[in-house]
Amino acid sequence: MILINENYTKLPGSYLFSEIARKVNEFKAANPDSNIIRLGIGDVTKPLTPAIIEAMHKAVDEMGEASTFRGYGPEQGYDFLVNTIIENDYKALGLDIATDEIFVSDGAKSDTGNIGDILGLDNIVAITDPVYPVYIDTNVMAGRAGELQNGKWSKLVYIPCTEENDFIPELPKEKVDIIYLCYPNNPTGTTLTREQLKVWVDYALKNKALILFDGAYEAFITESDVPHSIYEIEGAKEVAIEFRSFSKTAGFTGTRCAYTVIPKTVFGYTKSGEKISLNSLWNRRHTTKFNGVPYIIQRAAEACYSTKGKTEIKAIIDFYLNNAKIIRQGLTEQNLKVYGGVNSPYIWVKTPNNMTSWEFFDYLLHELNVVGTPGAGFGPSGEGYLRLTAFGTLDNTKEAVSRFKKMSI
Amino acid sequence: MILINENYTKLPGSYLFSEIARKVNEFKAANPDSNIIRLGIGDVTKPLTPAIIEAMHKAVDEMGEASTFRGYGPEQGYDFLVNTIIENDYKALGLDIATDEIFVSDGAKSDTGNIGDILGLDNIVAITDPVYPVYIDTNVMAGRAGELQNGKWSKLVYIPCTEENDFIPELPKEKVDIIYLCYPNNPTGTTLTREQLKVWVDYALKNKALILFDGAYEAFITESDVPHSIYEIEGAKEVAIEFRSFSKTAGFTGTRCAYTVIPKTVFGYTKSGEKISLNSLWNRRHTTKFNGVPYIIQRAAEACYSTKGKTEIKAIIDFYLNNAKIIRQGLTEQNLKVYGGVNSPYIWVKTPNNMTSWEFFDYLLHELNVVGTPGAGFGPSGEGYLRLTAFGTLDNTKEAVSRFKKMSI
Repeated sequence: MILINENYTKLPGSYLFSEIARKVNEFKAANPDSNIIRLGIGDVTKPLTPAIIEAMHKAVDEMGEASTFRGYGPEQGYDFLVNTIIENDYKALGLDIATDEIFVSDGAKSDTGNIGDILGLDNIVAITDPVYPVYIDTNVMAGRAGELQNGKWSKLVYIPCTEENDFIPELPKEKVDIIYLCYPNNPTGTTLTREQLKVWVDYALKNKALILFDGAYEAFITESDVPHSIYEIEGAKEVAIEFRSFSKTAGFTGTRCAYTVIPKTVFGYTKSGEKISLNSLWNRRHTTKFNGVPYIIQRAAEACYSTKGKTEIKAIIDFYLNNAKIIRQGLTEQNLKVYGGVNSPYIWVKTPNNMTSWEFFDYLLHELNVVGTPGAGFGPSGEGYLRLTAFGTLDNTKEAVSRFKKMSI
Repeated sequence: MILINENYTKLPGSYLFSEIARKVNEFKAANPDSNIIRLGIGDVTKPLTPAIIEAMHKAVDEMGEASTFRGYGPEQGYDFLVNTIIENDYKALGLDIATDEIFVSDGAKSDTGNIGDILGLDNIVAITDPVYPVYIDTNVMAGRAGELQNGKWSKLVYIPCTEENDFIPELPKEKVDIIYLCYPNNPTGTTLTREQLKVWVDYALKNKALILFDGAYEAFITESDVPHSIYEIEGAKEVAIEFRSFSKTAGFTGTRCAYTVIPKTVFGYTKSGEKISLNSLWNRRHTTKFNGVPYIIQRAAEACYSTKGKTEIKAIIDFYLNNAKIIRQGLTEQNLKVYGGVNSPYIWVKTPNNMTSWEFFDYLLHELNVVGTPGAGFGPSGEGYLRLTAFGTLDNTKEAVSRFKKMSI
């Protein structure tokens, strides 16, 4: 009899975005003439830039000629892309990452989701709260999360990040083995300074813990004391895996390219205490269950680092950051407390008058016809907040802000 | 302390292709003027066809314009592709598959590797032998394979497919829960008729077992009694998951697109006997750990089904099948026993004079300068065979055959 992985039955439905869609559709049906502005989902809107488009056309042509056609490539990514990544994202920071420490993939969602494959089931997992739901869901599937009790998973260690602690996660009191950190943060848009991140690296070194560092929003960093890579922190190359993505950096949400860095100096342990390189385990996983990113897409990713590509991409990031600034200012002028949006496309708004996040969501939808994402959807500590994104058009962003002025709460 | 998944430590190195490469390089170094013909690795050589190239150029342009740009798409694939797949690969066979039963992905390797995620660890797994190594390795990683003893995994059930049984797998004596079937087969190139496949579907129905049916080589089928989909067999929609790929069909080994079919009528069970739809579990996995295939690549896959695309692709398949025929004839004329190559790009050669597969490999390399793949690399029952592929150029294929005439064993 075919048995299922029963951990899957513990997962609640992916309620958040379907519930938002249901509410928006219901409102739209009742108010067909309303002009709804969507600042909810974190998807980019700007097209791929000319340098990227040009690189892809060239690669497409290569795939059509026998002499330049490419079949199976290295699962870890072509050298032309890996070397370009190292040069621009690491050497430029003075960091030394080897070619066999980079694994090109189809997305940071895939990699942060699949990384658990190589890790034991008895590890204690810590997540900051609120959090990107994939970290939790994939640990539920693996059986590391325990049971869902009053909105929390019994075996996970929740590290609240709220205005009370200025969104700076405090070290857990219990010992933990795996720590997910996402900075600049999704959903709060907040960051850690080098000094604040060092506290976690030191903890991991001391406790032989592993930091899974999601840097998908690195391109939005504007402040000089915010690290662009966790490997800027001394000792991190012994305890951290870094996930990076072209999705938000270069508008690749529908183009799909990312990479994961596993220094050969990061070790895990067998129960009997034997040290094993996580790089070699991930290499085995990556080459066995994955067949590489399309050649055409790897050429697109490479083009992001050309002089022309960099200039074009920076202009788009600046555009989104300007939207973020407009939203921040608009909300601040309404005496709302606003976080993030400086090194991030996400603005994290404290709900006024102790409204719940769903109440504030409903208010914005019904009174201002603006859609956000209720913070409670990202975890218990997201209650009392709402996420807005800077990925809209300039017109829509300005229009949303002009509607904020009509807020009467 | 960070614990690893210790199942990974049980995996032997991926010895086969690295050992082949080592031997070839060694020979090449000693004989720099030799003209080596490689008929070993199963990668295509023909470029993508004009219809596909055209579709990709168009899609690339769409990604460069705000009005046609695509961000996140549905993880399961765009309707335009899913509907085209259903129309051409299923409706054309008189089979009824629903849009939410198709999951577009980046490869059959990924899907056959990841499918175990949703299945329990206590299932007994059966594989035909010889076999595509990914089925075994991913079960080792999950912990379903037991220990490696004398070249066999203790908990796996091996079903030998050799000339003794005409490469027709016999039903196992013990009860099994998961059965991997790959037809047309990699590595043997052999097939099952509808009647022969029905035996397995009936077994699965009777024993509540699950068939994982890998149809990656479907496009090479030429004989009318060979099923193009397992769903042609009555009852299969209750017990089978089908994996399909554009890799060998349309030369997508470096372009990456595939799909998996999970009918909503395929169920798994909890230990307490509750029936759970595997479609819903896979949907949860696919949307949580994957973010869809690039839009551009999905348009490329769609183009494979246009009138022009179909004609172009058929010409390439016919070209490879003609190579296969040339190799078969050449070897048969040397009084070698040859299997496969009629509905498959793979030719499975019985080694002469009871040579081991590595001895025959060495002979071909050293005496004829032709590289094959030793059958022993695909499992115990592959000993005494060697795999040749039809993916070479016509000139190389003919040259290989003319060298076979010099065989003196």
